[in-house]
Amino acid sequence: MNYRNINTEETDQVEGRNSVIELLESDRDINKIFIAKGEKHGSINKIIAMAKEKRVIISEIERSKINQMSQTDNHQGVIAIVPPFNYCEVHDILEVAKKCEEDPFIVILDGIEDPHNLGSIIRTAETAGVHGIIIPKRRAAGVNSTVNKVSAGAVEHMKIARVNNITETIRYLKKQGVWICGTDMHTKTYYYEQDYKIPIAIVIGSEGFGMSRLVQENCDFLVKIPMKGKITSLNASVSAGIVIYEALKQKIK
Amino acid sequence: MNYRNINTEETDQVEGRNSVIELLESDRDINKIFIAKGEKHGSINKIIAMAKEKRVIISEIERSKINQMSQTDNHQGVIAIVPPFNYCEVHDILEVAKKCEEDPFIVILDGIEDPHNLGSIIRTAETAGVHGIIIPKRRAAGVNSTVNKVSAGAVEHMKIARVNNITETIRYLKKQGVWICGTDMHTKTYYYEQDYKIPIAIVIGSEGFGMSRLVQENCDFLVKIPMKGKITSLNASVSAGIVIYEALKQKIK
Repeated sequence: MNYRNINTEETDQVEGRNSVIELLESDRDINKIFIAKGEKHGSINKIIAMAKEKRVIISEIERSKINQMSQTDNHQGVIAIVPPFNYCEVHDILEVAKKCEEDPFIVILDGIEDPHNLGSIIRTAETAGVHGIIIPKRRAAGVNSTVNKVSAGAVEHMKIARVNNITETIRYLKKQGVWICGTDMHTKTYYYEQDYKIPIAIVIGSEGFGMSRLVQENCDFLVKIPMKGKITSLNASVSAGIVIYEALKQKIK
Repeated sequence: MNYRNINTEETDQVEGRNSVIELLESDRDINKIFIAKGEKHGSINKIIAMAKEKRVIISEIERSKINQMSQTDNHQGVIAIVPPFNYCEVHDILEVAKKCEEDPFIVILDGIEDPHNLGSIIRTAETAGVHGIIIPKRRAAGVNSTVNKVSAGAVEHMKIARVNNITETIRYLKKQGVWICGTDMHTKTYYYEQDYKIPIAIVIGSEGFGMSRLVQENCDFLVKIPMKGKITSLNASVSAGIVIYEALKQKIK
C-alpha cells in the first residue's frame, strides 16, 4: 500500500499534536486519525482519549509510513484525515454580509502562492470581521493543512470561494453594488486616503507580480502603502493586514 | 573536517542562488563562497563570474558537504560565508533619528522567537522608515541568514541593537525623551486612538505570550488591535505592521 495515496483529492489532512487536539475540540468531521506505533505518551494519550470519546477511528501505523504521508514534515507522530475544505460560492459571502446587516466587506486574493501568506491573510481577515475571501482556482495556493495551521484555525470560521476567473467575479460583484479597491504601488492615492465605509472588496496581488493587468483595469480605485525605506515592497500578508485594518477602523470608528 | 563547524559564531552564511546574487550585488563583505561540485550551469555561472569580479574566493566542495553546512535546507548548491550581523548600540539608533531631524521612531521586540516573524518585521520597519529595532539577547531570534532572506535584504539597511535587558533599555529610552507604547489585547485604547507624532518606541510582544509583565508595567501607554472574529490574535508580524503603519501614517499625514 502506498501511504502517499491515502490522502486523495477527496480528503485533507491535519498534522501535529496541537493541531489535531484543536481539530478534536472543534465541530469538524474527522475520517480517521493515524498515530505512529510506540508513540503512546504525553499529548498522544490525550488525542487517543478525545478520539475515543468522539468515536473517531484510530489507526496505529509505522512511523516510516506517517513520514511518507506527511505534507508538512512536522507531524509529531499524528495525522488526522478530514473531509476536504468546503469552499462556498461568491453569492454565499454576500449572504453573510446581508445576515449581519453590514455592507459587504470582502478580500480578493489575485494569485497568492505561498500557503503561509494565504493562512496569515485568512487569520487577519477573520479577526477583522471580513465576510469572505475569494481566491482563484489556478496558479494560487488552495486551503490545505498548512494553510489551516498558519491561519490558527480561522479557515473554519471564514467563507472562502474559489473561482475560475477573478475578473468575471469582480464584474459580478460590481453589479451587486460592491466597490473594488486594488492595491498597487504605482498609484497616487495612499491607502488611508480611501473611504472604505461602503460595500467593498479589497484586492491583494500575488507575492511577486502584484495584481494582473486585467484585474487592475477592473478596479474602481487603486491605493498604495507608503514606502519610506530602501526596500520597495512589503510581505503580502503584512500589506493585506495594513489595508484590511484601515478599512475595519473606518467601519467601526 | 566537520563542515558543520566551518561556520563558527564569528561568521554567518547566506544560502541559495538569488540570495547570494543579491549579496554579491550589495556592498557587504563576503569571506568565501562554497559551490557544490558539478553545479556549473545557469545562475551558478553568474555567481562565479560576479565573485571573480569582486575577488571573492570560491571553493568547490561535494554536494553532501554543502548539505551538512546548510541551515535552511534551501541552498540550491551555493552558500556564502559572511561576517556576522553587525549589531549596533541603542544610542546609535537615537543618532540616526537625530541625523534625519526626525522624532525617534523605534520598534522593540520583546521575545519574537520565529525568524520568519523577525525578518518580516524588519522588512516592515525598514519600509516604514523606522530608525532602529531593539531585540533581547536571550530567548529570542537573532539576525541570521533566514532572517536576512525573509527581510528581503532589509537587515542591511536597518540599525538593530541586541540588549541584555529590555526593561532597562526602556528606562534609558524614557530618559532620552522617548515614549513607550506597548501592544496588549487587554487594554482599552485602540491603536488608532493613540498619538504617535512624538518620539516613540512601539513594543511588540512574543508570539505566544505577548509582552512580559515587567516590560508592560514600564510602558507609558498600551494599545490594542480590534478583534471582530472568533480568532483572538493576529500573527506577530501582521500586528506589528498594523501598528507601525498607523504611526507612520500619522507622522507623514
